[in-house]
Amino acid sequence: MLNTPNLSHGRHTLAIPGPSVMPERVLQAMHRPAPNIYTGELIDITYSCIPDLKAVAKTQGEVAMYIGNGHAAWEASLANTLAPGDRVLVPGGAQFSKGWAETARKRGLIVDELDFGRRAPIDSDAVEQALRDDKAHEIKAVLVVQVDTASSAKSDLAAIRRAMDAAVHPALLMSDSIACLGCDDMQMDNWGVDVVMTGSQKGLMVPPGMCFVFFNEKAQAARARLERVSGYWDWEPRVNPQGYYQISCGTAPTHHFYGLRVALDILVHEEGIDNVLARHATLARAVWAACDAWASGGPLEINIPDIAARSNAVTSMRIGAPYGTQLRDWVTAEAGMTLGIGLGMATEDDPNSDGFFRIGHMGHLNSHMLLGTLGSIDAGLKSLGIPHGSGALEAAAQVCAGK
Amino acid sequence: MLNTPNLSHGRHTLAIPGPSVMPERVLQAMHRPAPNIYTGELIDITYSCIPDLKAVAKTQGEVAMYIGNGHAAWEASLANTLAPGDRVLVPGGAQFSKGWAETARKRGLIVDELDFGRRAPIDSDAVEQALRDDKAHEIKAVLVVQVDTASSAKSDLAAIRRAMDAAVHPALLMSDSIACLGCDDMQMDNWGVDVVMTGSQKGLMVPPGMCFVFFNEKAQAARARLERVSGYWDWEPRVNPQGYYQISCGTAPTHHFYGLRVALDILVHEEGIDNVLARHATLARAVWAACDAWASGGPLEINIPDIAARSNAVTSMRIGAPYGTQLRDWVTAEAGMTLGIGLGMATEDDPNSDGFFRIGHMGHLNSHMLLGTLGSIDAGLKSLGIPHGSGALEAAAQVCAGK
Amino acid sequence: MLNTPNLSHGRHTLAIPGPSVMPERVLQAMHRPAPNIYTGELIDITYSCIPDLKAVAKTQGEVAMYIGNGHAAWEASLANTLAPGDRVLVPGGAQFSKGWAETARKRGLIVDELDFGRRAPIDSDAVEQALRDDKAHEIKAVLVVQVDTASSAKSDLAAIRRAMDAAVHPALLMSDSIACLGCDDMQMDNWGVDVVMTGSQKGLMVPPGMCFVFFNEKAQAARARLERVSGYWDWEPRVNPQGYYQISCGTAPTHHFYGLRVALDILVHEEGIDNVLARHATLARAVWAACDAWASGGPLEINIPDIAARSNAVTSMRIGAPYGTQLRDWVTAEAGMTLGIGLGMATEDDPNSDGFFRIGHMGHLNSHMLLGTLGSIDAGLKSLGIPHGSGALEAAAQVCAGK
Amino acid sequence: MLNTPNLSHGRHTLAIPGPSVMPERVLQAMHRPAPNIYTGELIDITYSCIPDLKAVAKTQGEVAMYIGNGHAAWEASLANTLAPGDRVLVPGGAQFSKGWAETARKRGLIVDELDFGRRAPIDSDAVEQALRDDKAHEIKAVLVVQVDTASSAKSDLAAIRRAMDAAVHPALLMSDSIACLGCDDMQMDNWGVDVVMTGSQKGLMVPPGMCFVFFNEKAQAARARLERVSGYWDWEPRVNPQGYYQISCGTAPTHHFYGLRVALDILVHEEGIDNVLARHATLARAVWAACDAWASGGPLEINIPDIAARSNAVTSMRIGAPYGTQLRDWVTAEAGMTLGIGLGMATEDDPNSDGFFRIGHMGHLNSHMLLGTLGSIDAGLKSLGIPHGSGALEAAAQVCAGK
Repeated sequence: MLNTPNLSHGRHTLAIPGPSVMPERVLQAMHRPAPNIYTGELIDITYSCIPDLKAVAKTQGEVAMYIGNGHAAWEASLANTLAPGDRVLVPGGAQFSKGWAETARKRGLIVDELDFGRRAPIDSDAVEQALRDDKAHEIKAVLVVQVDTASSAKSDLAAIRRAMDAAVHPALLMSDSIACLGCDDMQMDNWGVDVVMTGSQKGLMVPPGMCFVFFNEKAQAARARLERVSGYWDWEPRVNPQGYYQISCGTAPTHHFYGLRVALDILVHEEGIDNVLARHATLARAVWAACDAWASGGPLEINIPDIAARSNAVTSMRIGAPYGTQLRDWVTAEAGMTLGIGLGMATEDDPNSDGFFRIGHMGHLNSHMLLGTLGSIDAGLKSLGIPHGSGALEAAAQVCAGK
Repeated sequence: MLNTPNLSHGRHTLAIPGPSVMPERVLQAMHRPAPNIYTGELIDITYSCIPDLKAVAKTQGEVAMYIGNGHAAWEASLANTLAPGDRVLVPGGAQFSKGWAETARKRGLIVDELDFGRRAPIDSDAVEQALRDDKAHEIKAVLVVQVDTASSAKSDLAAIRRAMDAAVHPALLMSDSIACLGCDDMQMDNWGVDVVMTGSQKGLMVPPGMCFVFFNEKAQAARARLERVSGYWDWEPRVNPQGYYQISCGTAPTHHFYGLRVALDILVHEEGIDNVLARHATLARAVWAACDAWASGGPLEINIPDIAARSNAVTSMRIGAPYGTQLRDWVTAEAGMTLGIGLGMATEDDPNSDGFFRIGHMGHLNSHMLLGTLGSIDAGLKSLGIPHGSGALEAAAQVCAGK
Repeated sequence: MLNTPNLSHGRHTLAIPGPSVMPERVLQAMHRPAPNIYTGELIDITYSCIPDLKAVAKTQGEVAMYIGNGHAAWEASLANTLAPGDRVLVPGGAQFSKGWAETARKRGLIVDELDFGRRAPIDSDAVEQALRDDKAHEIKAVLVVQVDTASSAKSDLAAIRRAMDAAVHPALLMSDSIACLGCDDMQMDNWGVDVVMTGSQKGLMVPPGMCFVFFNEKAQAARARLERVSGYWDWEPRVNPQGYYQISCGTAPTHHFYGLRVALDILVHEEGIDNVLARHATLARAVWAACDAWASGGPLEINIPDIAARSNAVTSMRIGAPYGTQLRDWVTAEAGMTLGIGLGMATEDDPNSDGFFRIGHMGHLNSHMLLGTLGSIDAGLKSLGIPHGSGALEAAAQVCAGK
Repeated sequence: MLNTPNLSHGRHTLAIPGPSVMPERVLQAMHRPAPNIYTGELIDITYSCIPDLKAVAKTQGEVAMYIGNGHAAWEASLANTLAPGDRVLVPGGAQFSKGWAETARKRGLIVDELDFGRRAPIDSDAVEQALRDDKAHEIKAVLVVQVDTASSAKSDLAAIRRAMDAAVHPALLMSDSIACLGCDDMQMDNWGVDVVMTGSQKGLMVPPGMCFVFFNEKAQAARARLERVSGYWDWEPRVNPQGYYQISCGTAPTHHFYGLRVALDILVHEEGIDNVLARHATLARAVWAACDAWASGGPLEINIPDIAARSNAVTSMRIGAPYGTQLRDWVTAEAGMTLGIGLGMATEDDPNSDGFFRIGHMGHLNSHMLLGTLGSIDAGLKSLGIPHGSGALEAAAQVCAGK
């Protein structure tokens, strides 16, 4: 079934929405013996990551660093702010807002979901209305997935904050920015987001294994009101440690800290976070230019029609079953590249989301890599006989040309 | 203040009770790009670790794998078996049994502590009596730290189980074997331990970042009775996953799995777990032989007098302030080796535990490394003018000679 | 001068004619402590490389492995077959045939060069005539660069052998296949090539530092007639060692052997050498398809007009000064990719070869990487305003599609 | 036959006279993709190594860097200074002076050997006499192995230079310092050594694959008189390159340069070369102290009785067959450590040098590693029942204590 010859033999590329491609220097830094955990380099590295992480989220608040993944970040943010029986509002509609809502329910929270479907961002007017309706201020927090990697819809946090303020509602605004921090802009303080969370393995370009929860004074006040916070999730000793071991609540993720230090050097001190964001914005435009060209002559289309609601980190594509899965299989087997699967897009006609795929364009990504990814998709469309408009690759090259 | 010349320049060695020295092959395997997370090698590797982990703990039960450290394992084991308001018995007395007790309290549990001090293991007769006294069976679990790395006391889990059975008490027996699994024997099923937990960074020879909770049917039954278990800790979907992502509750610790696979190959398939245990037993005897010789002519002594209550993974030493800290500083600066600090040993006269140090002898350790560690301590004693008996190194070499 | 934003931040790619991109597994295998050099794994690995190297060159002859680069291979091949005062015929015309000729002269050999310019391969008829003219059989060897990376012209060794046989001339046929072994076919035995040489850093996908000289019985006979061969170059003890140290004439290139073993596993045992060649043939066709499209509307053209004389490893491009250097600078600065410089192409109007560049497509290369390279060139042409025909990228994608 | 349990499982240590143990950072730096070879970091790194290499050899002369091993350095030094038919004096007597003499013969040189046996250094008076006897000044060079790793005898180059000056003889003084540069002092300019050579894999702590030839103006003058120097060995373009590629005569050893840069940072800029030498001097004294103690009660003795003629890099031991091989096998199998074999020590009674072994104590070595090595030997002596004096390990520890 494979083509002869097979052209996949070479450096394999992941173009999935996380884990992202990591800089060689990050992996180099992690390939080292276990360090002294009492004094010296590891301690310095650990503390030095804190201001740089805050620079990425554009906040003067605090950041707690956990051994954990994105789901751990969900738990941590809820554990520090809400008690069983509290009510939360979860506007969204795609896979990850549903997942966070489910995590909240498992913690004993009462969850109100607002569903905007799988092709659109959150409507802040609807959020405002829901909060106005909550006259008793039972809703303690609004949980927003900034970019839902399943749909790749990006919601407007500043608008949601404005809506909350307009409703004069005291709920916390919490953002799951796991998929997009370091790719799409996050102005935590300017936008008035109270809690922001992310993971190590996306825009931060480090292997999976750490997550980060940023929080401001309002969130701290919420924590202070809780009867108890379990030891592992408690962010208080992590940000005000008596000793080094409290930063990580026990043994530190030694090797991840070495990798994170290098990644933050690259993002914050070498390229500069706003340049990073601008690069991702341009690369995303290149993706969309190619997709629009393909769409002009076939079934492939971008899942989110509204350009303002697209993410710079990931683009979900609709192509119709069985083309999505076929294309993904083809590029893996024939071109040496992995695309993201469709997630949470099942319909009656397509129970396995075979009509979808996703292009991850987060992290350590340059135009060479992206043009290779788009070129491979184009080759796959041609090989599989899937109708598509022409000119996609040159449209993307044109964007990368800066013209 | 440093000697001239300085002899520390070379391959630095950690002889602390975790993180332990890791095999080069483990680090090699982790130095790789992010893998395909949907199909292929990573998935196979993940599943293949499960039977090998069970072989290390000698159980037919289940094992849940978490992104987390030892403190996360504490939380996970409590979260799946106990509800706020439940009572637990925590026999022990050193740093880590106190820490686990505190973690339990923060989860809303009622904790009864039995304190056997910092130089002795748990007295199973006292446990039996405490359980007999609990006629209402309010105590739901007995939490035992198998080896407390602070004191290096090793408790006898089989004896504690016999004591529980003698008391005809239904409490769960849960063991924190973080410091010693893979060094000291653990016969989970034979000994009747219901929950066992460990971390990646000790006997398992992988960087910090993963922890493991083994449990049997009795523990599963306890979980079934709980009103809720929070999503991240819930071991149920981790051991009965609907899809791969549930094994890790979200993004998998991709690189740790690659490292763990190699470490388990070495432990289980190459050396064999019983040979690993026998190696550690012999190396521990070499440590003790040296320590006894030093003790014959000076203040240095092994913290745990009872040989049966010593661990094969770590040995805590008493030497009197300020010698402990002086010696630790000397070997780091002059010999290229880091010893463990005294932990939780503070007294009025020695508020910073400067009179203590610990020798970690867990993980990837051969006689060459251990004899270098003991030789460095001997050099330090001589350089600092700390009185000590002679013959320590040859006594250790004699043990390593197999004679 | 850089575009804003800059799109070069990501995994940098080399598309130069060596060193080539290496498999991650090769680098992984080389990241290890120094091995035991007396017994065990290193010895086994070293010997195991020999049959696999022969499989790559398709020979039953011998192969001597040297610590050295391509220039060392030139020396080694000459040192074992020719004495000062001997005459050699060097047909060619581009940079590397001139370089080998110069190396021969520095060894005291008399060199007859046949110049076919910088845009064409060797004309075997001209070789035949030169040998017929050498009635005294003064010419002891014909030195052919199979693919001259400067011009990227590929010469037909089988045709040259036929020409030599037609001239009934006893000279040795020696091939510098440094640039192309493992990309363009080499049938050493079938084609009657007496000596073949290559380096580690091109088709063999290992860092620079080793070179390899294959030879047959006729070449061995030539060596036997020499008064002396200096110790380092002498291939005799390397292929018939009394002890392991003779294989490398002293200390072995320990880490390179570990890398080479993995590279040969990939080439010979996993993909299969004929599949490797077929992959490179297809990828080269994709390059040419793109180049032909660009050429249809601008100054860019492939240096070698004759398709049969093109290499599957490298393509030299003519684009006119200063475009070549501009384009190279642009893709490095803006796309994260390095193209090869023009080499030995200077003219009066272009003394620095600024009107040339080269695309290396050797080694560990899949269609994703190649399409990224071509896409980056396309972006560069657009950004710099260099006229070019359209459709290049889709033409290449079409070839990669297998259609 | 192995002990039960087996104590070799852990980080294996090489204590052989090269390749030496390398810093982790060196290997880390070499684990990277192929670099841009035209501009940038690699070029800067390459040039920056030159002054640091000269600092190690304490010379204002030149240094040529080769892809090659120690035997290549022999060739290179001879190729640049001597023509076939020239006469050289080779005082020495152990394996490597014989090897260099043989290399000279294979280049057509006439070799006069002065044999001082296998337990003593060169007698400079005898050298003086030989040169006085050479009234016609036929001898063009005196070839001295500074430390012959086979015997571990260290010869006094300053004394030999004085002897040559006393004889008013114009021959070049050339030193093979492969085994000891960076461990034993080399004052090339002060001592009047005209050519010094070394390899990457000993005191320079980089994998095998590079060698270095230092030379002064007198040596350059010798080269100028030669009719020809073959291209690869010619040091002239390597030290006065027209372009970067000439430094390495073709493709550069890219990855070795990255490693070398780090190693020189450590040796020259972090520790300081005189501190490095002092460290090795002390560690060598620790070895000898242990050996003297062992020798007091058994057959083991240091091969070189004269302390002034011992090396700081390697110590050859005599122990009597079959003990040497037995001990080496034991420490490899039971302690995780490899000792050097006896080399060139064969006698009628011991045709395979089974009565010898060598301790390499060069390169990246601290007291922890060395005490582990000595401890392992002690354990081996005890396990095998080889008689030996007691107190060896504490004697070594005493030296490492700086007392």
